[in-house]
Amino acid sequence: MTEWYRDGRACNTVSADDRGVHYGDGLFETVAIRDGAPRLWEYHVERLQTGAARLGLASPGETLLRSGLDTALAQTPTDTRRCVAKILLTAGPGPRGYRRTGEGSVTVLTGISDARRIPDARYRDGIDLRLCNTRLAIQPQLAGMKTLNRLEQVLARNEWSDGSVFEGITLDTDGRVICGTMSNVFLISGQQLLTPALTRCGVSGVMRRHLLTLLDNAGIDCQVRDVDVRELWAADGVFISNSQIGILPARRCERHTWQPQGVFHRLRTLLRNSGIDEGPA
Amino acid sequence: MTEWYRDGRACNTVSADDRGVHYGDGLFETVAIRDGAPRLWEYHVERLQTGAARLGLASPGETLLRSGLDTALAQTPTDTRRCVAKILLTAGPGPRGYRRTGEGSVTVLTGISDARRIPDARYRDGIDLRLCNTRLAIQPQLAGMKTLNRLEQVLARNEWSDGSVFEGITLDTDGRVICGTMSNVFLISGQQLLTPALTRCGVSGVMRRHLLTLLDNAGIDCQVRDVDVRELWAADGVFISNSQIGILPARRCERHTWQPQGVFHRLRTLLRNSGIDEGPA
Repeated sequence: MTEWYRDGRACNTVSADDRGVHYGDGLFETVAIRDGAPRLWEYHVERLQTGAARLGLASPGETLLRSGLDTALAQTPTDTRRCVAKILLTAGPGPRGYRRTGEGSVTVLTGISDARRIPDARYRDGIDLRLCNTRLAIQPQLAGMKTLNRLEQVLARNEWSDGSVFEGITLDTDGRVICGTMSNVFLISGQQLLTPALTRCGVSGVMRRHLLTLLDNAGIDCQVRDVDVRELWAADGVFISNSQIGILPARRCERHTWQPQGVFHRLRTLLRNSGIDEGPA
Repeated sequence: MTEWYRDGRACNTVSADDRGVHYGDGLFETVAIRDGAPRLWEYHVERLQTGAARLGLASPGETLLRSGLDTALAQTPTDTRRCVAKILLTAGPGPRGYRRTGEGSVTVLTGISDARRIPDARYRDGIDLRLCNTRLAIQPQLAGMKTLNRLEQVLARNEWSDGSVFEGITLDTDGRVICGTMSNVFLISGQQLLTPALTRCGVSGVMRRHLLTLLDNAGIDCQVRDVDVRELWAADGVFISNSQIGILPARRCERHTWQPQGVFHRLRTLLRNSGIDEGPA
């Protein structure tokens, strides 16, 4: 499982009065740890703080988050050369009722667990996707954030148990392509890149942000806009991204197939040059 | 706060690996306890079991839920002549990731807390409402259920701190009237009653269900359908319901005012005759 730490000590429980348990009143980050250090740390901190501000939660400072992480990494029996740190921020314990009372008493937990190993073949040959039946509700007030309200992702991910399907693509209730259950999605058409806007729903991934920055710096255009599902089927190539896996090409979804495209390989090189080294060399 | 019980013993924590904490992967019920016994118990059990089935969670039997409740009531220092029991059902602890693994290992917690005292004047003169800015996302897959994904209600309830406003009315993202943050809403126009359909979002309250049954038995027509916000403003009377408070008339929302109507008083009598006795005699 996961080893959990709070206020510098091992702590594998949460108060039964915690608003995280009752309402999902909080946020989380899943940080890749490589050689003992967090990857894309600034992006994780910024997303967590921006999310906390949007939810009206007290925003923990970077110093506090980092010391929580470093203490956890120092104490965990897990090999920190390659592992996952999950930071959980909740509105903390409170009396019954939706109204928040105890100002500023947020709960911050840091959990360390083993990194999942993705076989090299998946990086090389691509992954199989599924189009999920579960749709994402349109809720601009929560869009982009990694809140603790994740039932849609749970329902979408539990639609399949076939191990050969790596990820499920979710549409919003109006039929637009939004993201995977645990990843963001990019489309390639010729030399043109495209990724769905996340203003109505979906999670704005830190790896997606990093990729958009890399592409921008390299002068490769990537549109961020609404994407119709027919564009997904018509794309030359498709790939997914998340903080742990980097990028993975998709080879199939339902009856549609794609091939890794030139621009994908170029992006993988850019990613590797930026210090994000996942998959075979 | 709340005293929590699990498996027959006091237990004020939840595992930090619990899927309730991470994803809001679960449901809850808030049961009114009067004279040591749960009110509308069958409705609570049925909603919890139906919700569990819809979410794909193992459904705890009525016997298990009832023994959990009775053990909690026997042990709590709270006066059980009048209190609140909150039953929390989660998908239980699991490894990182949206996919559920440990089949059937649900967590069931029962919490006992003091009942909130509503001043008699609110039952007599009515309450003030607010129209919330927070909208409810349209998500038929979760509609009607009391899941642990309650951020919309948290955001809506935290829009105001003015103690004179008792409840906030929430619309869906298309502008239909749905419910209050913690209650259902009914409109009266002449002798006609109306309450919003909850097929797209909102929580299907047990008191709402009880009221609909009482009205049906008494031959009083109550429509259950989509409600436009203009119908709310045009109504002769408005009232809210929930499992704890029974029914409370509304006297004001924003610039609009209402008067308790004849049919409201008739319903209050029906409610009292059904054994639900809240507010002044």
